[in-house]
Amino acid sequence: MPASFDRSPLGLAQALIRCPSVTPEEGGALAWLGGVLETAGFTVHRPRFSEAGTPDIDNLYARIGTGAPYLLFAGHTDVVPTGDVAAWRHAPFAGTVADGVLYGRGAVDMKGGIACMLAAALDYLEAAGPAFTGSLGFLITGDEEGPAVNGTVKLLEWAQARGERFDHCLLGEPTNPERLGDMIKIGRRGSLTGKLTVQGRQGHVAYPHRAENPIPGMLRLAGALLAEPLDGGTSHFDASNLEFTTLDVGNPATNVIPAEARATFNIRFNDLWTAETLGAEIRARLDRAAGDTVRYGLDLLPSNSPAFLTEPDAFTDLVMAAIETETGQVPQLSTTGGTSDARFIKDACPVIEFGLVGETMHQTDECVAVADLNRLTAIYTRVIAAYFAASARSAPGG
Amino acid sequence: MPASFDRSPLGLAQALIRCPSVTPEEGGALAWLGGVLETAGFTVHRPRFSEAGTPDIDNLYARIGTGAPYLLFAGHTDVVPTGDVAAWRHAPFAGTVADGVLYGRGAVDMKGGIACMLAAALDYLEAAGPAFTGSLGFLITGDEEGPAVNGTVKLLEWAQARGERFDHCLLGEPTNPERLGDMIKIGRRGSLTGKLTVQGRQGHVAYPHRAENPIPGMLRLAGALLAEPLDGGTSHFDASNLEFTTLDVGNPATNVIPAEARATFNIRFNDLWTAETLGAEIRARLDRAAGDTVRYGLDLLPSNSPAFLTEPDAFTDLVMAAIETETGQVPQLSTTGGTSDARFIKDACPVIEFGLVGETMHQTDECVAVADLNRLTAIYTRVIAAYFAASARSAPGG
Repeated sequence: MPASFDRSPLGLAQALIRCPSVTPEEGGALAWLGGVLETAGFTVHRPRFSEAGTPDIDNLYARIGTGAPYLLFAGHTDVVPTGDVAAWRHAPFAGTVADGVLYGRGAVDMKGGIACMLAAALDYLEAAGPAFTGSLGFLITGDEEGPAVNGTVKLLEWAQARGERFDHCLLGEPTNPERLGDMIKIGRRGSLTGKLTVQGRQGHVAYPHRAENPIPGMLRLAGALLAEPLDGGTSHFDASNLEFTTLDVGNPATNVIPAEARATFNIRFNDLWTAETLGAEIRARLDRAAGDTVRYGLDLLPSNSPAFLTEPDAFTDLVMAAIETETGQVPQLSTTGGTSDARFIKDACPVIEFGLVGETMHQTDECVAVADLNRLTAIYTRVIAAYFAASARSAPGG
Repeated sequence: MPASFDRSPLGLAQALIRCPSVTPEEGGALAWLGGVLETAGFTVHRPRFSEAGTPDIDNLYARIGTGAPYLLFAGHTDVVPTGDVAAWRHAPFAGTVADGVLYGRGAVDMKGGIACMLAAALDYLEAAGPAFTGSLGFLITGDEEGPAVNGTVKLLEWAQARGERFDHCLLGEPTNPERLGDMIKIGRRGSLTGKLTVQGRQGHVAYPHRAENPIPGMLRLAGALLAEPLDGGTSHFDASNLEFTTLDVGNPATNVIPAEARATFNIRFNDLWTAETLGAEIRARLDRAAGDTVRYGLDLLPSNSPAFLTEPDAFTDLVMAAIETETGQVPQLSTTGGTSDARFIKDACPVIEFGLVGETMHQTDECVAVADLNRLTAIYTRVIAAYFAASARSAPGG
């Protein structure tokens, strides 16, 4: 537990960045965060989860207050690898500030976001004092950038088994494409991965009638999957999109017709589909294209990423208002982008996502403007204040 | 030089099979062959050729007689590897006969063929005695199954530099698909290999608009190459045929759009094309399909395999007649199949190919019926006799 620390959003972000918590390493980040939260009066738990075939993972759950409503901040302290450290302008775990910009792995994804949540919570709780009658919590994992097996999903099970119930969750992922205030995420497309194999019969290129080249069949099946859009999108979702991520034969001999071709595709799908209905559509397209001539196999990988939507409500309005007040922008309500732990949290309570600007995430020289850290802290502070003020007006006690 | 040896086609074939001449090893095969030919009165040369980056190769050139016309037998003593020796019913270099069938690597490709040529030449020369006024030669390499750099192509240069001029050549490759007498090869399609690359821009599958997936572009270009036949064939040639032999991306990450896709294709083309005109057609098809949207690269590998045809003439008629007399079959005149050293010999003199049944070539348990060895020897003997008898009638001396 830190005896004293820099409570500014920048100081908190620097302290977190200086913990080298490259997934799955805890790197001291959760220990430091737990110390700060305990100092502020939170009850802190540090459950560690394990599962065969995946790394053991440290997690953190902290709560202050016992009343209603319960607002939960969620996030992760693990970060993606740095890549070539020599390519960075500033060492990735140094927390260097240059020209008003904080550099470091996790600056926006999402140690910066956690620092803002933390600064906002400390500010609010200090100002509210004993008048605070709700509950405020932190649900932070070290397994968001990894397999996401021993992280948020198990942490939620663990908390719910202890009787914890949340009213709303704000996840601090970097949701803004270019400027702070651009975008709130209110859901995500689902993700489904398929592995397609076309069988042929090996032979010599000079005797194609004695062989069966699987590549033309693969071209036909892949073409059939790409030929028609899956849908046209829905009110809160883009059109579902299929991308082939690889296509491989691996035959080094230029005079040999190969025996097999393999491809992998990933679909980001909207709320018109479930993984099951989408899988059926894919199989139907492949069957039509294959006819009696192409022998194929399709392996649809189990998906724990369904499409989901948190219908905009009073909580969304409150977050939008805070953003507009601090940035002058009306954020777009979006369901674009990659998956996040919101796909697990949505089963526990309504969840929306708002954080820093994602432009440099996962890249060399990941960075955040110090001004953005301060503004995001101001937004989060407004959200907390408005949330508990609204509940005090509408439903005192709990 | 063997003091005495079994002069039957079977005995000669067994002696050759027992030399383990897996390409590029000489394995004693050419030394043995040279000894037999010297005993029979041939002048034997054993040039060895080398070139940086390829194995040194032993070759054999033998000639008897100085007059015209000059009939050349051509072939190779190197064989392809055995694969798993344990999978063979009889050891691949033992020359075992079982139920009238000779087993061994090279039984049909083409130590059996060389044994038949040799038996026929020895028989003919012994019978003709001093009446033989033409020239008979053997041009045998140890580099047909390998890179074919230090073999027939250099052996021909070497012989021509010494003033050797040939009138006709019979190459003893296994030309018959199923039965002895099925097929004479009078030419070959050319071979051209192309490497196609489509460039994209890497990115996350959830943000396809920020990336550029090269796989749909590759599907389009590959489809364009396969969409229309290259031609409809010619009087002696099948239609030109393009086969994709591999197509690779090599991206293991199912959430990443890759940066590049690569494919290799091989075209077996007929006498409507040269490698140059065909390359231009391929580029034109790719350019049309690529338009302004697909960025591709095409690397056409240098080809020393042009399409060629030995126009059927009196020599072909003579070989056909010998085959029909011995087998009762009228052989098909074909240009199908893989390349052979005929592609080099055709620049020195008219060349046709006729040998054993190719069904088991390059496979485990490669084998030949002893009856086929005897019949092919009878055919070759008839060819030699008719060739020199015809020349004696039409153009005595030389």
